[in-house]
This record gives sequence, structure tokens and C-alpha cells, in this order.
Amino acid sequence: MPAQETPTVESIAALIDHAILKPELTDAEVAADLDVAARWAVFSVCVRPSDVARSVARLAGTPVATGTVIGFPHGSTSTAAKTAESRRALDDGASELDMVLHIGRLRSGDIAAVTDDIAAVVAVAEGRVVKVILETAFLSDDAVVAGSKAAEAAGASFVKTSTGFAGGGATLHHLRLMRGAVSLAVRVKASGGVRGLDTLLEMRAIGVDRFGTSATDTILRDVQRLVTTGSTSGATDGSSY
Amino acid sequence: MPAQETPTVESIAALIDHAILKPELTDAEVAADLDVAARWAVFSVCVRPSDVARSVARLAGTPVATGTVIGFPHGSTSTAAKTAESRRALDDGASELDMVLHIGRLRSGDIAAVTDDIAAVVAVAEGRVVKVILETAFLSDDAVVAGSKAAEAAGASFVKTSTGFAGGGATLHHLRLMRGAVSLAVRVKASGGVRGLDTLLEMRAIGVDRFGTSATDTILRDVQRLVTTGSTSGATDGSSY
Repeated sequence: MPAQETPTVESIAALIDHAILKPELTDAEVAADLDVAARWAVFSVCVRPSDVARSVARLAGTPVATGTVIGFPHGSTSTAAKTAESRRALDDGASELDMVLHIGRLRSGDIAAVTDDIAAVVAVAEGRVVKVILETAFLSDDAVVAGSKAAEAAGASFVKTSTGFAGGGATLHHLRLMRGAVSLAVRVKASGGVRGLDTLLEMRAIGVDRFGTSATDTILRDVQRLVTTGSTSGATDGSSY
Repeated sequence: MPAQETPTVESIAALIDHAILKPELTDAEVAADLDVAARWAVFSVCVRPSDVARSVARLAGTPVATGTVIGFPHGSTSTAAKTAESRRALDDGASELDMVLHIGRLRSGDIAAVTDDIAAVVAVAEGRVVKVILETAFLSDDAVVAGSKAAEAAGASFVKTSTGFAGGGATLHHLRLMRGAVSLAVRVKASGGVRGLDTLLEMRAIGVDRFGTSATDTILRDVQRLVTTGSTSGATDGSSY
């Protein structure tokens, strides 16, 4: 939706990657969460790599795409592991890959290593969407900018703030830095701490294109309330992602 | 060392895998931590997969082995990613692999999936030591036992408690469960929360064979104090791993 229009359930749902990433989730919990995504017809789910095939199967016949994460959540695996993981995810039916860049190398100023690592995943993706998670909680402002530029140089489609597992999530400050660091050809995804509609709309207004959240049900119920009554509840679900 | 003997720096150092795993560590921080491991001549370092080659190079000429982590810290990557990551780590010179089992499948009771995932890494390791991280903070007692038995059935050398990144580490209760669940052919590694000598000795007395810690300097200085004065400081370094 254009940033200034009144939101509808459909327009907000179209911006959401519903996150189903916690390592301890059981098969039954994952299935229930996939059904939440289907019920609201969000843009996609973002599932654990080992759940891609079952997600694609369960969401068949719905408009919901399946994405997954690569090198998640630390980003410090080998490039060989990231590319093998990407290949398997694509073979299993993933349409988008959210990879974590090498946080330590970025903090060390080794931009070549960071860029090569991203470019290897972009090459495997063969034109499919690759989002690059910066893990902004660990980064200086300079590193946020350098990481964003490395992602664009390596051919990524999106820069993304957070894994949701590092004790800090998306902030307006970091999102503005990221939006300003890349050309308009690169989109921005906010994740971690996107727990309510008010936060989402505030981020949307500064140019965020996609939202990773596990609070999908809370957010979209709030849109329904807004459409009906003209005000949101201001509720958050208290979850960490 | 036999569990009942008075510790020496050498006997305790021989039990330690010095953990250098935080995703935000810079190259310089990793190098400094490798030098700590070399100074104390610990059994091994446990480094990020992307740091294996540089660890092997920096520790050349010391007795310190290089190990790494696989599918870390969530364990929910694909088996294909775990095996590719293992192959690269071994090619880079890793002598031990600490893999995270599939926590969600274990909690779902899908023991076959858990076992097959471990067995695939064991096959790639071709006789080298594979440790299986259970991430006990997420598990019921029954799941701790079932995960330990799956690790032994899959041919693993060790069962290990924790990644250090799940908000809970090794406890005596879990270590006793693990020790009782596997045969004496399988060793036990405590990790997460091993921050001082007193904790280490208490765990050693119930049959723990190896300790993963980043508090190596604190622990081994305390051994020196014990040897000199007959008492430990009881100090911990307050780090999370």
C-alpha cells in the first residue's frame, strides 16, 4: 500500500513475513502457526530451514509464500554452509532467503569478506529474493551503513534489521540509516520488536517495505479494530520477535 | 585426571574446550582469545565455523586442537546444511565437531529424525569426535534422556548440555540424567554456566569429561591459587558462556 493510505487487513497482511523460527517449536506448534499465516493471507511465512518442505506442502492452495533463514541466527558459519543450506531450501520450495551476514567480519571492517559471503548466496538464489540480516543490535551506525552498502553491492534485494534472537530489534534510527544507505532498488525489512500496528505504521511511514513478526494475529486484529472503530488498541503481544 | 585427585593446571586445562563463539567477536578479539587458549595449553578451542582455518594456523606449534560448531546454535538447519558445514570444517582442519541436534523434532518425539540428522554428521566426520548438543534448557527430563540415547545410537562420541545462547546452561541435574542415559563409551561435556573452578570440580565428580567455557582464564588462575594456598577464590567471571 502507499505509505499514507488508511490501512486495510489486506494491505497490511501483504507486508508481513510471519516468523516461525524459535528452535524449540514442535511440529504441532509450527503447523498451528502456518495456519495463522494462511488464515490472514500474509505475504509469506519465514520458517526454519528444516521446515521448508512441510510449510510449502501445508500452505499449498493458499497465497502464502514460504521463505526461510540462512546462517541463522549467528551468521558465522562458513560460506560453504550458507550456500549448501540455500540450495537445499530452494530445492524444498523456498521462494525467499533471509541470510545473516558475517557480523564479526563486518565489525572488523573486512567488507570484502562480508560482500563475498552475501554474493555467494545471491548467486545460488538465481534471481530469487535474498534479504540480508545485519543484526543491528551488535553494530555501530557506521557498520549499519557499511553492511547495507555491502548487501547492495553483492546483489541482495533487501536489507533487514534483526534476527530477533540478539536481545535487540528494529529501531526507527537503524531503519532510517539503512534506508539512506542503499538505493531505492533495495528494499528494507524491519524485524525483531515489531509487535503492534502502531509500530508497524510508524516504520512504514519512513519507507519500510516488509515486516518480520510473530505478532501477526495481534497486528491484524488491530487493523480490523482500526477499520471498525477508527482507533487501534495500542496492544502488543509481548513476544520477543 | 581421575575425578578424585587434587587438580593441577595441566589436569584441568586438559579438560577444557575454550569457547570463542559469540557472533559479534571481531577478528582481533578472536585472535586474542586463541592466544589465551595457547597460553594455558587447554585441550582445544571451540570456534565459529568461519574461523576454523585461521584458528588452526594461529595455534600451529601449540598442543591446542581446533574444534567448531555445526548447526549452531538453533539446530534447525537442514541436514544437508549440517553435513556441508561439517565437511568444510574438517577440510579447514577441525578435529572435533559440536553439533546441535534438532531441538524441535526431539520435543515432538520424532526420534528417527533426530537420530538420522546426527548420524549424517557422524558419517561425514569419519571417526573424528562428534559431540551432540542437546540444549537442555528447552527439554523435559524425558527429552534429555531420549536425546542422549539418540546421540549414542547415531554414533556420537559425546553428549553436551548447552550452546550457551539459550538463556540456560549446564546443571548437575541434567548432567546426571545424561551420564545415566548413555553407556560409558559416550562421554559428557558440560557447557554454558561453567564459570568457576568450584562448579567444574563438582561436575567432574559426577563424571563429566569435558568442559566448554569462555572463563578459562578465571578457572585456571583459580587452580593456581588452589595449588598455592589450598583454597579457591570462588570467583566467577560473570560471562554468559
